[in-house]
Amino acid sequence: MSTTPANPTPATSQAIDPEKWRSLFAPLSVIEDSLVRELAPRPPCQPVALLEAVEYAALGPGKRLRPLLAWHACEAMGTPGERSLPAGLALELVHAFSLVHDDLPAIDNDDVRRGRPTLHKHAGEPLAILAGDALLTRAFELLAFTPLDSTEPTRRLAELDAAEPALRLALLRELASATSAMVAGQVWDTCAGLPPHLAPIEQLRLIHVNKTGALIRAACRMGAMCAAPLHPGDLRLTAITAYAEAIGLMFQIVDDLLDVTQSAEHTGKRTHKDADAGKLTYPAVLGVEGSWTEVERLHTAALDALQPLLPHARSLADLAEYLSQRTR
Amino acid sequence: MSTTPANPTPATSQAIDPEKWRSLFAPLSVIEDSLVRELAPRPPCQPVALLEAVEYAALGPGKRLRPLLAWHACEAMGTPGERSLPAGLALELVHAFSLVHDDLPAIDNDDVRRGRPTLHKHAGEPLAILAGDALLTRAFELLAFTPLDSTEPTRRLAELDAAEPALRLALLRELASATSAMVAGQVWDTCAGLPPHLAPIEQLRLIHVNKTGALIRAACRMGAMCAAPLHPGDLRLTAITAYAEAIGLMFQIVDDLLDVTQSAEHTGKRTHKDADAGKLTYPAVLGVEGSWTEVERLHTAALDALQPLLPHARSLADLAEYLSQRTR
Repeated sequence: MSTTPANPTPATSQAIDPEKWRSLFAPLSVIEDSLVRELAPRPPCQPVALLEAVEYAALGPGKRLRPLLAWHACEAMGTPGERSLPAGLALELVHAFSLVHDDLPAIDNDDVRRGRPTLHKHAGEPLAILAGDALLTRAFELLAFTPLDSTEPTRRLAELDAAEPALRLALLRELASATSAMVAGQVWDTCAGLPPHLAPIEQLRLIHVNKTGALIRAACRMGAMCAAPLHPGDLRLTAITAYAEAIGLMFQIVDDLLDVTQSAEHTGKRTHKDADAGKLTYPAVLGVEGSWTEVERLHTAALDALQPLLPHARSLADLAEYLSQRTR
Repeated sequence: MSTTPANPTPATSQAIDPEKWRSLFAPLSVIEDSLVRELAPRPPCQPVALLEAVEYAALGPGKRLRPLLAWHACEAMGTPGERSLPAGLALELVHAFSLVHDDLPAIDNDDVRRGRPTLHKHAGEPLAILAGDALLTRAFELLAFTPLDSTEPTRRLAELDAAEPALRLALLRELASATSAMVAGQVWDTCAGLPPHLAPIEQLRLIHVNKTGALIRAACRMGAMCAAPLHPGDLRLTAITAYAEAIGLMFQIVDDLLDVTQSAEHTGKRTHKDADAGKLTYPAVLGVEGSWTEVERLHTAALDALQPLLPHARSLADLAEYLSQRTR
């Protein structure tokens, strides 16, 4: 595995050369533009305050990891990534919804998100609750209505069309199942109720396979599905899914490590909050070095899973490398 | 309009004979059983506390008005009402979600709902927020996965099937649009931001056409769509929609009147809360008598709209009469 980097640490990860990743992140400008265009219409049937709250939550500086994964998963199937935009944007809206509700005073009680006040600090708690609800609903609306064969995802259909109902339905199913799993993970993370017979490391996996992993898995699967009709048993879908499950868990372990090792100024959100809240984390269970070893193991597993999809899956491999080394 | 009752008042409405409505409410036992069965599975991939919270919110004593409307709208098209169950249950879950979030301390801060503690009083605020999210997501899952040609809505498909993708998609679109409108109505009702150039009666309409009306409209339309493929311009869909819009507004006016005139013991929720909260209500804008006159006008409009669908739409006509006279 010559592509596997040396066991990364926060110290070495600061040294990543942005130039190396240019093609990997090239889709971000199209993704960002599409997200802005998707949210730009101000229909008179919606309260301005709600539209502004939705925009604030969805358009704040973010990694856009889920649309980016969908894009590169689509390209890994040999299809231009634009085709994944409706799926990627829907996932981004679900992600934004989850952050808004997680940040609420009754849950994580966070004041800062993406370097700005959280939505309930910015617009008040009632509007934050309802804007979260609106973002979640909007994700389903977007997938249900947006033309799937277009790079203009803002164009809503005036009439019911029958374009690709099977693909839309498959995407809607992925989105619904993944969102359901994500909410379950959030409950395990914040309201406890973890099965007590599980070892701490298994409890951690249960939380994060759902809380973070489900949307990452859906991003990769939905991106691939946008490229080609895929039977559930299709080996390409199996490969993409195995990749996604590995990087999903890896992403969370790195997140936990950043919470321990980075400053709030650097990550744009409150750090050390997991330990402060007495939460189960990977560094607490495996230690910092043990957690980096697990990152490395999952990185290798992700690259192995991609073998059948090379060379098209080159960007997914690069993304796995980037995610194993990210510093925010 | 011989079916139009004399202008009802709270005094006369107490005198409704339950026997008269037996066939109208006969589907409720099937609806209730189906809802219980839909929520009964306890998959290990979901936290028990979350499943219990979802059940508490969805299975509490309720009118099941939306599934009942979907059922009778389906029968108004000449098709057995069972066919509407997936649509009706999905709408009931969205309704339950909306009540849980509306009741939260930051929004309506209600302690009692359906004669029991509200979910956040029963299970805590974090779980109430997340159970609301889960209920909303579950509604989309139910419609996306449940066999549409079956009266066994609990049977989930093991594999992606392609059964009736166009109908599923049409139903998912209705559900998403109606939920989006409902959240908008809730924002106007609780976070203000109403267009200031509108007269108070127009502001009220804007709130309630969205907050209450959208799901009632969707219930009738989705029930009819379950019965037959309906082009958006189909005159039967136009008739059902006009009926639904009339009874949706009527329902809310009666709700406002009950808030003024009934006790909390009778309605199972806090009353007089609108006036206490300084909210815009129909009795406040039109007076109690003027509100009953508006109820009567909308009742007549609903019956007029049903003319092209008689005699199959007999139950919808009876339901409009019942809703014009309900006391809780």
